[in-house]
Amino acid sequence: MHIELLRRCQYFADLPDQTLAAAAAAAQLRRVPTGDFIFRQGESASHFYVLAEGHARLSQISPEGRQIIMGLIGPPIEIGIIAAIQGAVYPLDLQATQDCQALAWEHRTLIRLLESHPMLALRALRMVSGRFVELQDRYRELATERVERRLARALLRLVNQSGRPDGDDVTIALPLARQDLAELTGTTLYTVSRTLSAWESSGIIRSGRERVTLCDLPRLSEIAEG
Amino acid sequence: MHIELLRRCQYFADLPDQTLAAAAAAAQLRRVPTGDFIFRQGESASHFYVLAEGHARLSQISPEGRQIIMGLIGPPIEIGIIAAIQGAVYPLDLQATQDCQALAWEHRTLIRLLESHPMLALRALRMVSGRFVELQDRYRELATERVERRLARALLRLVNQSGRPDGDDVTIALPLARQDLAELTGTTLYTVSRTLSAWESSGIIRSGRERVTLCDLPRLSEIAEG
Repeated sequence: MHIELLRRCQYFADLPDQTLAAAAAAAQLRRVPTGDFIFRQGESASHFYVLAEGHARLSQISPEGRQIIMGLIGPPIEIGIIAAIQGAVYPLDLQATQDCQALAWEHRTLIRLLESHPMLALRALRMVSGRFVELQDRYRELATERVERRLARALLRLVNQSGRPDGDDVTIALPLARQDLAELTGTTLYTVSRTLSAWESSGIIRSGRERVTLCDLPRLSEIAEG
Repeated sequence: MHIELLRRCQYFADLPDQTLAAAAAAAQLRRVPTGDFIFRQGESASHFYVLAEGHARLSQISPEGRQIIMGLIGPPIEIGIIAAIQGAVYPLDLQATQDCQALAWEHRTLIRLLESHPMLALRALRMVSGRFVELQDRYRELATERVERRLARALLRLVNQSGRPDGDDVTIALPLARQDLAELTGTTLYTVSRTLSAWESSGIIRSGRERVTLCDLPRLSEIAEG
């Protein structure tokens, strides 16, 4: 039932049943097969989503056509609140990297919900502010910190968000190519490969095709903290 | 009168008189002398502000104590909407670089305003989303673009925000040291000095102590666009 799914999202957590029921009743279910786009950068921001199943990749294309990955997301997560804003466009691509299911609220439906449940509008503000603060931290890291440290932080963020225990280790349960890591940290494929190989030799990580397992979290945290 | 000031802010523009009057009546005026902080990074986010007079600098200190400038702002501008969020802390320092006056709304006053005027909550969401999208663009620039281009874009953003005509040229009406530009664009003082000197020789800019004048906007835009 949609209400239970919403309850597991930070955005909807601990809201009155009546608010959750109104939100759930107004949602539509959308299925997106692997490789398709949930939304595209520059398109009219028509819908707000809660990703219910499957993983997806947020990326941005520069005017010269260079792609940079802004995030890798897994369920349940709310995304696209910019659809609350009249006339906005999506600033990013969101592409399904697995078969996805998402709840969707169309712009006018969303505005009605936010107006009749001020708590939802305040939560939306909190969500965007939280992501803004995170992005400021990443911007500062990119401007001031060495690649090795940015890469360590990116892995810790991903494991925090999508880690799955694997014996004594933790695997990042997202398809994760080295090129993805290069784009996530604003560096080159060459530098990512060199750094991951060094960490693999030191027993800090294990990596396979599109897969990274963290074997020594304390040491990786030390690198992340400089 | 405060209502007139609010009307000139994007956040309050074109709102019904009744909403503006309620917002103005709930505001307190705060004076901040040059060099003092309007708020500090890590402090409880107690107030939302509209800067009414004077310029100020937004900056962030990394855990190692390295400063990075996130923005230079001039009046009238709204800042610190994170104060709407229960328990939040300011993610940045805001320091007066001139004597400043600001209207201030304390957390509880702000929440009451947002709840009784849903349009203000939606505007707050729009404001933060807009800044989020800008920051994403800057993040992408920092990750993918060469320093010269980032510097050209930073100057164009500043002139757009605080340009003052100066004969056929435009001066950035903010105190602007080369170190500020280095921190704004995530590069070194040396690189900024070298690039500005080259542009000065080519007649694209003139620069003095804490002052930059743009003499050839079309050429600077070409550099910014790559």
